[in-house]
Amino acid sequence: MVDRPIFILNGANLDLVGTREPGHYGDMTLADIERACRARADGLGFGIDFRQTNSEGELVGWIHEAEGAAGLVLNAGAYTHTSIAIHDALRALTRPSVEVHLSNIFAREPFRHHSYVAPVVRGSICGLGAKGYELAIEAVAALVGAERAG
Amino acid sequence: MVDRPIFILNGANLDLVGTREPGHYGDMTLADIERACRARADGLGFGIDFRQTNSEGELVGWIHEAEGAAGLVLNAGAYTHTSIAIHDALRALTRPSVEVHLSNIFAREPFRHHSYVAPVVRGSICGLGAKGYELAIEAVAALVGAERAG
Amino acid sequence: MVDRPIFILNGANLDLVGTREPGHYGDMTLADIERACRARADGLGFGIDFRQTNSEGELVGWIHEAEGAAGLVLNAGAYTHTSIAIHDALRALTRPSVEVHLSNIFAREPFRHHSYVAPVVRGSICGLGAKGYELAIEAVAALVGAERAG
Amino acid sequence: MVDRPIFILNGANLDLVGTREPGHYGDMTLADIERACRARADGLGFGIDFRQTNSEGELVGWIHEAEGAAGLVLNAGAYTHTSIAIHDALRALTRPSVEVHLSNIFAREPFRHHSYVAPVVRGSICGLGAKGYELAIEAVAALVGAERAG
Amino acid sequence: MVDRPIFILNGANLDLVGTREPGHYGDMTLADIERACRARADGLGFGIDFRQTNSEGELVGWIHEAEGAAGLVLNAGAYTHTSIAIHDALRALTRPSVEVHLSNIFAREPFRHHSYVAPVVRGSICGLGAKGYELAIEAVAALVGAERAG
Amino acid sequence: MVDRPIFILNGANLDLVGTREPGHYGDMTLADIERACRARADGLGFGIDFRQTNSEGELVGWIHEAEGAAGLVLNAGAYTHTSIAIHDALRALTRPSVEVHLSNIFAREPFRHHSYVAPVVRGSICGLGAKGYELAIEAVAALVGAERAG
Amino acid sequence: MVDRPIFILNGANLDLVGTREPGHYGDMTLADIERACRARADGLGFGIDFRQTNSEGELVGWIHEAEGAAGLVLNAGAYTHTSIAIHDALRALTRPSVEVHLSNIFAREPFRHHSYVAPVVRGSICGLGAKGYELAIEAVAALVGAERAG
Amino acid sequence: MVDRPIFILNGANLDLVGTREPGHYGDMTLADIERACRARADGLGFGIDFRQTNSEGELVGWIHEAEGAAGLVLNAGAYTHTSIAIHDALRALTRPSVEVHLSNIFAREPFRHHSYVAPVVRGSICGLGAKGYELAIEAVAALVGAERAG
Amino acid sequence: MVDRPIFILNGANLDLVGTREPGHYGDMTLADIERACRARADGLGFGIDFRQTNSEGELVGWIHEAEGAAGLVLNAGAYTHTSIAIHDALRALTRPSVEVHLSNIFAREPFRHHSYVAPVVRGSICGLGAKGYELAIEAVAALVGAERAG
Amino acid sequence: MVDRPIFILNGANLDLVGTREPGHYGDMTLADIERACRARADGLGFGIDFRQTNSEGELVGWIHEAEGAAGLVLNAGAYTHTSIAIHDALRALTRPSVEVHLSNIFAREPFRHHSYVAPVVRGSICGLGAKGYELAIEAVAALVGAERAG
Amino acid sequence: MVDRPIFILNGANLDLVGTREPGHYGDMTLADIERACRARADGLGFGIDFRQTNSEGELVGWIHEAEGAAGLVLNAGAYTHTSIAIHDALRALTRPSVEVHLSNIFAREPFRHHSYVAPVVRGSICGLGAKGYELAIEAVAALVGAERAG
Amino acid sequence: MVDRPIFILNGANLDLVGTREPGHYGDMTLADIERACRARADGLGFGIDFRQTNSEGELVGWIHEAEGAAGLVLNAGAYTHTSIAIHDALRALTRPSVEVHLSNIFAREPFRHHSYVAPVVRGSICGLGAKGYELAIEAVAALVGAERAG
Repeated sequence: MVDRPIFILNGANLDLVGTREPGHYGDMTLADIERACRARADGLGFGIDFRQTNSEGELVGWIHEAEGAAGLVLNAGAYTHTSIAIHDALRALTRPSVEVHLSNIFAREPFRHHSYVAPVVRGSICGLGAKGYELAIEAVAALVGAERAG
Repeated sequence: MVDRPIFILNGANLDLVGTREPGHYGDMTLADIERACRARADGLGFGIDFRQTNSEGELVGWIHEAEGAAGLVLNAGAYTHTSIAIHDALRALTRPSVEVHLSNIFAREPFRHHSYVAPVVRGSICGLGAKGYELAIEAVAALVGAERAG
Repeated sequence: MVDRPIFILNGANLDLVGTREPGHYGDMTLADIERACRARADGLGFGIDFRQTNSEGELVGWIHEAEGAAGLVLNAGAYTHTSIAIHDALRALTRPSVEVHLSNIFAREPFRHHSYVAPVVRGSICGLGAKGYELAIEAVAALVGAERAG
Repeated sequence: MVDRPIFILNGANLDLVGTREPGHYGDMTLADIERACRARADGLGFGIDFRQTNSEGELVGWIHEAEGAAGLVLNAGAYTHTSIAIHDALRALTRPSVEVHLSNIFAREPFRHHSYVAPVVRGSICGLGAKGYELAIEAVAALVGAERAG
Repeated sequence: MVDRPIFILNGANLDLVGTREPGHYGDMTLADIERACRARADGLGFGIDFRQTNSEGELVGWIHEAEGAAGLVLNAGAYTHTSIAIHDALRALTRPSVEVHLSNIFAREPFRHHSYVAPVVRGSICGLGAKGYELAIEAVAALVGAERAG
Repeated sequence: MVDRPIFILNGANLDLVGTREPGHYGDMTLADIERACRARADGLGFGIDFRQTNSEGELVGWIHEAEGAAGLVLNAGAYTHTSIAIHDALRALTRPSVEVHLSNIFAREPFRHHSYVAPVVRGSICGLGAKGYELAIEAVAALVGAERAG
Repeated sequence: MVDRPIFILNGANLDLVGTREPGHYGDMTLADIERACRARADGLGFGIDFRQTNSEGELVGWIHEAEGAAGLVLNAGAYTHTSIAIHDALRALTRPSVEVHLSNIFAREPFRHHSYVAPVVRGSICGLGAKGYELAIEAVAALVGAERAG
Repeated sequence: MVDRPIFILNGANLDLVGTREPGHYGDMTLADIERACRARADGLGFGIDFRQTNSEGELVGWIHEAEGAAGLVLNAGAYTHTSIAIHDALRALTRPSVEVHLSNIFAREPFRHHSYVAPVVRGSICGLGAKGYELAIEAVAALVGAERAG
Repeated sequence: MVDRPIFILNGANLDLVGTREPGHYGDMTLADIERACRARADGLGFGIDFRQTNSEGELVGWIHEAEGAAGLVLNAGAYTHTSIAIHDALRALTRPSVEVHLSNIFAREPFRHHSYVAPVVRGSICGLGAKGYELAIEAVAALVGAERAG
Repeated sequence: MVDRPIFILNGANLDLVGTREPGHYGDMTLADIERACRARADGLGFGIDFRQTNSEGELVGWIHEAEGAAGLVLNAGAYTHTSIAIHDALRALTRPSVEVHLSNIFAREPFRHHSYVAPVVRGSICGLGAKGYELAIEAVAALVGAERAG
Repeated sequence: MVDRPIFILNGANLDLVGTREPGHYGDMTLADIERACRARADGLGFGIDFRQTNSEGELVGWIHEAEGAAGLVLNAGAYTHTSIAIHDALRALTRPSVEVHLSNIFAREPFRHHSYVAPVVRGSICGLGAKGYELAIEAVAALVGAERAG
Repeated sequence: MVDRPIFILNGANLDLVGTREPGHYGDMTLADIERACRARADGLGFGIDFRQTNSEGELVGWIHEAEGAAGLVLNAGAYTHTSIAIHDALRALTRPSVEVHLSNIFAREPFRHHSYVAPVVRGSICGLGAKGYELAIEAVAALVGAERAG
C-alpha cells in the first residue's frame, strides 16, 4: 500500500497562503508547504498527492477519490465550518484521515470554532502552521502502519 | 406537456449510494434508483431526466433549467441543510417540485433536521429509500395532472 | 398477515378537514380521504382501519393496538409537535409505520417544524394532501412485503 | 343570533378555583364565577353555556362545537401554554373569541408567558380575576354586535 | 377618593391612531378614544386625566404623578417592549393599574410578545381596540372599590 | 390517617412496561410492580391505590382525588416533560408526593431531562426500576409519619 | 412636491461626529455633512431639513412630521438598535425613506448588527461616511421621481 | 464482596449541613446522616466508608478508589452541576453508584437543574433529606445483590 | 483642574429613592445622597454637580457636557440595561468615569444583570447603597490624581 | 489606476433577475443592470468588469482576481448569508469593496439578516434595486479617489 | 468585634498579579496590595487576614472560616465565573462580604460577565485596581458598623 | 535553554488511562505515554518533566511553574472544558505551549467541544492517542528552536 500516496487536500483561499495575512497563516506559500510535506512523507516512505481548490463540490469529489489513497490530510479552509457535504464525504471514507489548520481557529472568530470535519476524521491539528501538515503526515503514516500491523 | 420529462436531481455524495453506509442509504446504487424511477414514470406516461452533481452551483443551474420540465424531484443531499442558493432557485421555480431523502433525516444528527428545501417545494418524502423516489414521481405526476385539469 | 388491516390514525382537528381552511388542508373531507385510502389499500391487497380522535391519550392507546395491525399510517395533527407520549408509543411499536401530513408543515409556523413523530417512524410524507395518505399506504405495504420476503 | 349562547370554556384545574391557592386565583369558586358571568351576559341579552374539563381533547371538541355559539370566552388553563391542538381548533373557529386568565400570567413563571391561545383569539384579558370573565363577555357581545351591524 | 381621576396614559405613536394603519389599530382617533373613556368613567363615578407623549422619560414622570390618582390605565405603546424605566416606575406605584393595547400584540411580530409592563400591573387587556380602554377603566374602578371596601 | 391509601399513579405507556424495551424499563410488568408496591406499603402499614392511564386529563383528575389519600407516588411517564396541567394539579395538592421513573431519564434524550413534576413534589427518584417505587413508598410513609409527629 | 424638502434626521450622539472617535465616524463634523447634503440635494432639485436630537421621543415626533416631506434620510444612531417606537413611527410613514450609518455597523459589536429601522425603510446604506448621506439623498430623490412617474 | 464497604462520598459545603440553611438542607448534621447511613447499611449487611471534602480533585480520587468498594452513594454538592472531571471518574467506575441530594434541586435555581453526575450513575434520589441517603444505600445494596445473583 | 467639579448623574426613577421600595434602595433620599457626596468630595478637594433626569436623551447630553468636568459618577438607573445611546456617549467621553448602583443588581431579575454602561467606564460599584456613591467619588478622585501625576 | 476596471460580481440566482419574483427584485434584467452600471462608471471615469456565477468557488476565485481591479462591487446573492469562504476571500482583498443587494434583506426572512460579507467590505447598500449598484459604483470610485489623494 | 479581622481572600492566579499582564491587572504585586489593604483597614480600626490560593476547595474552606471574621473581601479570580461551590459557601455565610476585581470584567470576554459570587455578597466593586480593595474594606467596615449600631 | 525540560502536564482522570475505557483512550498507560514522550524529546535534545494531578488548583500552580521550562505540552483532561483558572494561567505564560487530547473530543458529547485551553495555547492536537503527545513535543521543540533563531 506504500505505493499509494497520501492525499493532501486544501480548500478555499489556501492558494493565497504566504501572500496575504501572514499574521494568521505565516509566510510560507502553498508551494513551500507542499515541498515540506513531500520531504516528510518521503522520509516515512510515502508519496503525496497535493491539491488545492476553491470549490466545495470538487473537494467532495477528491475525498471520494481518496478511497484509493493511503490516507488523507485535509485542510478544508472555510468549508470546515459550513460544509455538511464534506462531512458526509469524510464519513463515507474508510481510509485514515487527519484534519489540519495553519492558524489556531479557536483563537479567532466564534464562527471558526465549529468544525464539520473534526468529528469524522481520526484527529485534528491546528495552530502549528506548516509544521502541522508535517505532523499530520506522520500521524497518517502511523495509522497506515497500524492497519498493516493490525 | 407530457413530452417534457420530470427532472430528478441528486446532490452531494449521492454518487456513493449503494456502495457505502448501507445502514443509512440502503444497498441500491444510484443507477438502480434511476431504473426504478424510469419504470415508475413510464407507467405514468412521463420520461425522466436523472442527474447527480457534487456542486451546489451546478444544482442551482439545473433547477433553473427545470423551468422547462414537467416537474422536479429533488434530493439535494447535504445541501438540503445549508444552501440558501438552492432555496432561492426553488422559490423562483414555477413547476411542481417534491423533495426526497433516502434516509430518515429526523432520526439522525440535529443538523440534518433543518431543510432549506422543504419550505419551497410542494411536499417532502423521507426515510423510504428508493421507494420514496417512486412516490415522489407519482406525486409530481398528480400535480401536473391537476394543473392540466385545473 | 394480509388479513390484518393497515391502521390509519388521525389526531386533533382532522375531523374538520375539508370544511375549514382549505388553503392549508384542501377541500376533501376526512370521509373522502378514507375512501381514497380504502381504494389504494384494496389495490395493494390490504384492508384499512381508519380512525380519528382529538384525544392524545386515545391516540396513544390506538398505537398500542396497532401492534396487531399490518402497519400504521399516522397523521397525529398538532400532537406531532408536542407529544412525547405518542413518541414513546411509536418507539415501542414493532410494526412498520409512516407519518403523513396534509399540509407542508415546513412552510408554516416554526412551532410546526419539529416533530416528535418523525424520528420514531420509518418515513415521513408531507404537503401532498390526500395523495400523501395513498403514498404512505403504498410505503407501508412495501415494508410489510419486505418483511415477509426478508 | 341572540338565541345562541356565549360559550365559556374552562380547562385544566379550574375546577379547583376558590378552594386552593387563593393568592393566585382569588376565593371565588367556579360556580361563583359562572353566576357572575350569567348575570353580566343576561344584562347584555345573551345566555351562556359554561363548562369545565381537564381533558385537552374534550376542550378541542367543545371549541369545534362553539362554531354554533354567539361567541367564545376561553380560559384554557395550563393548556394555554402547551396546546397546539387548541391553537388549531381556535384558528378554524369563525366566531368571535376572547382569552381570559384569572391570575396575571406575566407575573408568574416564564413558562406561563407564552400563549398558544393568544395569537388566534381576538383579544386577551388577564390578572383581573372573575371580573376578567365579565369584561370578556362584554367584549364578545360587542364583537357580535359589530358583526350584525357590519 | 372619587375626586381623584383615573389616569389614562398613552405612549409613543398613539397620537397617530385612527389616521394610519387602521388594520392594526382601528379607525377611532385618540380623541374618539378619550371621549369613550370619559363616558365610561363618568358612568362609574370617576373623572379621567387622559394624556399622550412620545417621550419615555415623560411617561416615567407621569407614572410617578399617578401616585396621586385613583388608578392608572396605561398603553405604553412601543415602550411596553423595551422600557425597564417604565417597569421600575410601575413597580414603585401603589395605585391599581391595568395595561391596555389596541391591537392583539401576540398576533404580531415576536418582539411585541414580551412586555415589561405586564408583570408590574394588576392585569392586561389587549386586542379589543377602544373597547379595551373602557374595560380597563371598569377594572380599575372595581379595584379602587375593593380597596375602599377592604 | 393510615386507613387512607397511598396513591400510586402511572401515566402514558406504562401499561406496556415489561413487554417492550426491557433495556430501558426492565422486565417486570406493571402488575409485578403493583405487587411489589403492595408488599412494601403493607410492611409500612399502608394500603395502596395503584392506577394507570394514557390520558393527561384523567391523571389531572386523579391528582385532585389524591387530596384524600395519605400521599402520592407519581410516575407521569412522558407527561412529566410536557404537562403544565399536571404541574398545576400537583402544586395545588397538599399531601406529600414523590416522583418516580423506572429509567434514568438523565441518561436519555435531552427532552427527557426537564421535568414539570420535579419542582412541585417533595422528592424524585429515578433510574432504579421497580425498586424506585418501593423507595418512594417508604419516603411518602416517612413524610406522613413526620406530619403526624410534627 | 419638489417644494417639499427631504428630511435628514440624526439621532443620539451624532452632534459629536467629527470631534471624537474619527476611526469610526470620520473627521467631518455634522455641519460639514449638512453642507455636503445640501449641495447634493440642490443638484437634484430638492431642499433639505437637517436636524439632530439625542431624544428618542423627539425623533419619533419628527418622523411623524416627515409625512409632509418629500422623503426621509434617517441616521437614528444608537436608537437604530433599541427603538421599537421609531420602528412604529417609520412603519406608519408613507413617504420614501432610506437609512444611513456613517460607520460599518456590521464590523462592530454584535449589538449593532440588529436594526429596528432597516425592515421599515426602503433601503439602507452603511459604512460609507458622509458620502453615504449623499447616496441616500439620491436614492430618495429617485424614489420620489418614480412616484411621480408611476 | 460484603466485606467491601459502600462508599458514601460528600462534596463541597456538606460539612455545613445542619448548621446553616435548614430550610434547604434540614437540621441533621453530617455526623447525624453518617449514623443513619451506618444503621441502614448494617441492617443490609454492609459497612460504610463515609467521607466529605470541599476539593473537586480529592473527590475524583475517591471515586477512583471506589472501584474497590461494594458500591457508591455520591452527593457531589455543587460539583454536581459543574464538574466534568467527576463525570469522567464516574463513567470509568464499574461499581454500582447512586446520586443523592438533600434538597429538591429542581425546585431551586436553574443552574442546579443540570447534573453532570446523573447520566453516569445508575439512579438519582433528591429532595428527601437524610432519608434519601438511606434509600440510596438500599438501592446500591440491591444492585450489588443483583450482580451476585446475575 | 480641581476647580472642575465631579459630575454625579442619576437616571430614571432615582428621584423616588428613599420614598419607595426601601428594601431595594435604602431609606436615604436623593437629597441625602447628594449631601453625603458633597461631604466626601469636599474632603477630597472637589466640588460636585449632582443631577437627576428621567430622560435618556437628557442623560446623553449631560454625559457630553461631562467632557468639561473632572470626572463622572453615573447611576443610569434602568437605562443601564437598555441604552446603547448612553453607551456611545460614555465611549466618546475622555474623562474618568465610574458606574454606581444602590442595589445589588446581580441579586435581582436577569434583565438587570447586563449593563451597557459597565464596559465603557473605568469601574463599577454596586449594592453598597449611598456609601457606593462615596466610594465612587474617591475612585474618580484617585483617577484624576493619577492623570495629573502621570 | 483608472485603466483598471471596477469589478461588479454577482452570485447565485442573479441570472434570473427581472424574469421572476419582480416583487422582490424589480423588473430590470441583469443585462439592464449592467448597462446602468456601465453608464454610471463611465461618467466617473471607470470601466467595469461585470460577471455572474452560481458557483461559490468561482466567486472566491473572482474576488482573488479583483486584487488587480480598481475596486469591487459585490452582490453575493444567497452566498452572502452562508459563505465563510467568500468572507475570507474579501478579508484578504486590499482593494476597496462595497456590498449591494437589490431587495431589502432586513425586511425578509431572518436567515437573510446575517451577512458574512458585510463585516469585511467598506460599506453596504441594500433595498434600492438597480439604483443601489449605481450608488455602490460611486462609493467605490470615491474610495479609489481618496486612496490616490491620501 | 473589632478584634476580629477582615478576611481578604484571593483566588486563582492572583499570585501572579503585578508580574504579568499589567494592562489588565496593574503593576502592584499581591504584597503591595496587602500593604495597601492593611493601611486602610488599620485606619478604620480593623486588622486583616490576607490569603491567596489556586484551589477552589481551599477557598470554600476559608469562606467557611470567615464566619469567625468581622467580614469578607473576596476576589475569587476565575472561580468567580465557574464555581457554584463558592456561591454556596457565600450563601451560607452570615458575615458582611464584598466582591472585588482588579480589572473591569465587563470590558473583557463574555465568559467573565457572569459572576456566581455577585448575587450572594452585599456588593461588588470592579475595574478600580488595588484601590478597589481599599474601597471594599471601607464598605465592609461600614456594614460591620451598621450591624453594631442596628 | 536546552537544559530546561519540556513540561508535560496531565489533568483529571489521566491516571486511569490504559486501564479503563480503551475505546476512547487506547490501551497505553500513562507510564507508557511518559516513556514514549521521553524517547521523542530525547531525540530532539530535550528532557521532560511529566506529571499528573486531579486537582485544578495544582495544575494552575504547575502552569505558573512552567514559566521556567522550555515549553509546555498540556492535556488538562476534563478541566479543558470548564476551567477559566487554567485559561488565565496559560494566558499569563510566555513559554510556547501545545494542547493535546488522546481522544477525538469533537466526536464525543457536545460539552467536550468547547475548550478554554485552545484559545490560549499555540496549537492543539487531538484524537491521535499517545502519538499526539509525541507530535506536540516536536511542535514545542520547533517553537523553541524558532525563538532561538528569531
